[in-house]
Amino acid sequence: MDTGEFRRLWDDLAAIGRADDGGYLRFSWSEADLACRDWFRAQAEDRGLRWETDRNGNRYAWWDPEPTTVPGEAPPDDRAVLTGSHFDSVPHGGAYDGPLGIVSAFLAVDRLRAEGAEPRRPIGIVAFTEEEGGRFGVPCLGSRLTTGALDPAAARGLTDPDGITLADAMRAAGADPDALGPDPERLDRLDAFVELHIEQGRGLDGEGAAVGVAGAVWPHGRWRVTVTGEADHAGTTRLADRRDPMLTFAFAVLAARKEARLAGGLATIGRVEAEPNATNAIAARVTAWLDARAPDDTVLEAILREFESKVQDRAARDGTQVSITPESETTLVEFDPALRDRIATLLGGAPVLPTGAGHDAGVLAAHVPTAMLFVRNPTGVSHAPGEAASDEDCAAGVEALAAVLRDLAC
Amino acid sequence: MDTGEFRRLWDDLAAIGRADDGGYLRFSWSEADLACRDWFRAQAEDRGLRWETDRNGNRYAWWDPEPTTVPGEAPPDDRAVLTGSHFDSVPHGGAYDGPLGIVSAFLAVDRLRAEGAEPRRPIGIVAFTEEEGGRFGVPCLGSRLTTGALDPAAARGLTDPDGITLADAMRAAGADPDALGPDPERLDRLDAFVELHIEQGRGLDGEGAAVGVAGAVWPHGRWRVTVTGEADHAGTTRLADRRDPMLTFAFAVLAARKEARLAGGLATIGRVEAEPNATNAIAARVTAWLDARAPDDTVLEAILREFESKVQDRAARDGTQVSITPESETTLVEFDPALRDRIATLLGGAPVLPTGAGHDAGVLAAHVPTAMLFVRNPTGVSHAPGEAASDEDCAAGVEALAAVLRDLAC
Repeated sequence: MDTGEFRRLWDDLAAIGRADDGGYLRFSWSEADLACRDWFRAQAEDRGLRWETDRNGNRYAWWDPEPTTVPGEAPPDDRAVLTGSHFDSVPHGGAYDGPLGIVSAFLAVDRLRAEGAEPRRPIGIVAFTEEEGGRFGVPCLGSRLTTGALDPAAARGLTDPDGITLADAMRAAGADPDALGPDPERLDRLDAFVELHIEQGRGLDGEGAAVGVAGAVWPHGRWRVTVTGEADHAGTTRLADRRDPMLTFAFAVLAARKEARLAGGLATIGRVEAEPNATNAIAARVTAWLDARAPDDTVLEAILREFESKVQDRAARDGTQVSITPESETTLVEFDPALRDRIATLLGGAPVLPTGAGHDAGVLAAHVPTAMLFVRNPTGVSHAPGEAASDEDCAAGVEALAAVLRDLAC
Repeated sequence: MDTGEFRRLWDDLAAIGRADDGGYLRFSWSEADLACRDWFRAQAEDRGLRWETDRNGNRYAWWDPEPTTVPGEAPPDDRAVLTGSHFDSVPHGGAYDGPLGIVSAFLAVDRLRAEGAEPRRPIGIVAFTEEEGGRFGVPCLGSRLTTGALDPAAARGLTDPDGITLADAMRAAGADPDALGPDPERLDRLDAFVELHIEQGRGLDGEGAAVGVAGAVWPHGRWRVTVTGEADHAGTTRLADRRDPMLTFAFAVLAARKEARLAGGLATIGRVEAEPNATNAIAARVTAWLDARAPDDTVLEAILREFESKVQDRAARDGTQVSITPESETTLVEFDPALRDRIATLLGGAPVLPTGAGHDAGVLAAHVPTAMLFVRNPTGVSHAPGEAASDEDCAAGVEALAAVLRDLAC
């Protein structure tokens, strides 16, 4: 396909929620998110696609097969092939993580129509809600609710950094939080889900390939680390009298890195909140979030066990208390091997890559045959404004996705 | 004096700006601050004291001497004795730090009037603006502007955590930021400044004394520590490819503590801001504030030098950049020895204590003979909700302040 065609649709979406640094602030149920949802609806309507929003706020556009008109011909299959991704970003995240999968889906439909293809089963495009957990802290919120992996009452009570609950944010956006919940009938009507996504590393660049296929998602999770000490005056309290949670937190940052390095996994503390967060006061409490991932579940458990043990030892020396509680945990996800191999062959032997990042595809994989396509990311930068793919590679991604949809649904 | 009298006036002020945890959110030019200013005005008016606000937002009440009526008698001295402190708090700070000096000043005037004393020179009560730097980051803002230690243009551009400038905050409160600036005539009209303050340690408790006198203020300062790395995806970026500023920051927290311990000073990092502060992103930048203090200037310089050297070494290993810039620095302040000794003797040999905390009195000391009275703090807790003094000790503080004002101004 023409790179200009990709670029036109891409630019049409690009301004929504973009900050001065070129990064994105597209948080679920925010004004930027609602503008993205409007954009999605307009794209569907422009193409004559039926659109709808499910009980969990995920939005769909449907290209339905024509009803059977030839007497005796079998009716079209009603089990759909779904593609798509998410609009929402981490704070100041890149443009491609999520939206590339949605833009590519609309363009793949255009590609199939241009060649006169007709679906023999419904082809759906989905925009999942809050994949990043950038506002309410739980990643893959929309897909987890749909599969029943997240309790709707717990979801309603999640709060954003301003203390606004998901329920209130949904109501303010005109959505109904009481409708949240599992949607097994919807999942049952899916024959396959294929998510196209920018790669979040440099694997394809190393392989010299524009497009690849996901093998597995590393087990991963996030844990809230709360260190409680005692607030006091920074200028008058003797060092020996202090119970300073910032010290324990600092140790935890370095311990996470060390344990991940020794075990061959990844561990990161990128988010921290100190209270009262005053220059001349010893902190009363420091809350941090640990993100940890590993090639298998045993290694991930070992990293967590060592981290917790060493941080607790340090807390005892600092006179502080530490609690480490999981906010989300995902075990190893192997994508459907038959679907993965079929797609890799269809794409002429595309590379198969593991990924350390979670995706809605990883959540759906337990319920629906699921695959992921990756588009080359030459710098590997992700979750930051510098994240990018070339227009040529994005166009190749659209071609690959069109080929997959043609194979599975036309 | 009667502890009930203290308690009545104390309780009258106590509700303003109090948070659920019992700590205070009295930030300069906030609604709580304006309510404190109104309270001050009402106290002045109740007592028939003339009140005014200076160009820097500091509010004064004046008990002026009667004009001379006896022919041949010398006119009263027009050089004033000033007392008072500040209303503003650190976030969730204690009730006593600041307000005790203002409440005690009004009660000391009541005490002198009750015994029929008459001032021979003006007695002033002052509430300085933003002593804590809790909103705009620069402590002793009001007194520094008045003495010319802070450039008014720089002050106008200071921002609070919401990005609101001091100029805008003043305008919103009906004050004129263009008027900010040095006020040497006002300082010239001061004969002495005496600030009463709750002690921020347990020195008086150890001495078994309700009231003490300040000897010197330790040299102290705050430095902004900015660590810049590269934002990236926490789940996909290899540890070896990262430039993670959180690691350098964590090292800095531990290094500050270690260097202070070795040198016999104090160093604290109690405030930190990470960007983008997302759970699944490596931070792009971490900004922290170092508060450091020491018994003399040489020791403080040594702590800073070692801290900076070790943090820079670590940054080189982490692939990050660090800048450490002073936001305020105050060298050793020795209070006026003659005034200090006079007050200690007047109070029957009150203990003389050093302090690690900065005060408006420390800023004025370079321009006006200045002294401080401390009131016993049995737990030593400061800048936290648990900060407290007994009503008996507070009443003793009022008596001591009344004695000092009687001696210096009646």
